[in-house]
Amino acid sequence: MKLVKVYVTLKTSVLDAQGEAIKSAIQTMGYDHVSQVSMGKYFELRFDDYSQLDQDVDAICDELLTNPNIETYRYEIVEEK
Amino acid sequence: MKLVKVYVTLKTSVLDAQGEAIKSAIQTMGYDHVSQVSMGKYFELRFDDYSQLDQDVDAICDELLTNPNIETYRYEIVEEK
Repeated sequence: MKLVKVYVTLKTSVLDAQGEAIKSAIQTMGYDHVSQVSMGKYFELRFDDYSQLDQDVDAICDELLTNPNIETYRYEIVEEK
Repeated sequence: MKLVKVYVTLKTSVLDAQGEAIKSAIQTMGYDHVSQVSMGKYFELRFDDYSQLDQDVDAICDELLTNPNIETYRYEIVEEK
C-alpha cells in the first residue's frame, strides 16, 4: 500500500487573498511576529502497490486536483503496511 | 526566519465527503488502484525568530486555522534564511 501526500499551493505570481486575510486575522489576535501566510490544499491518496504510480499521480494532479493555470503541486510517496 | 507548515485534516470519525467525491472522480478517470482519498488544508506561515513560537502556533491553529470539533492538525517548523 502506498500513501501519496499531495500539497497544492497557489503560484507565487497569483494573489493569495485567503492567506492575506488569515495573516491579518493572526495579527489582530496579537501575534505580530507573523510576516507571511499562504493557504493551500492537502490531499492524502492511498493506492494499491503497482508500477506506474508516479505517472498516474502526475496525471491525477494535473487533471483533477489542481488548476494548472494558477496552482502548483508537489507530492511525496510513503510506503505503508 | 521560521517557516511553519500546518496540515489540517478531518478527524477520522468525521465523514470526508469531498475526499469520497474525489476518489469517485479518480476512479471514473480510470485509475482504479486508488483505495482512499482525504482532503485537508495546508498553510505556510512565516515568522520572525522568537522564543515562544511553538506555543503561539498551537494557539493560532486552535483558535483560527482549525475547527477543533471536527478537524485535527499537525505542523512542522523549518529554519529559513
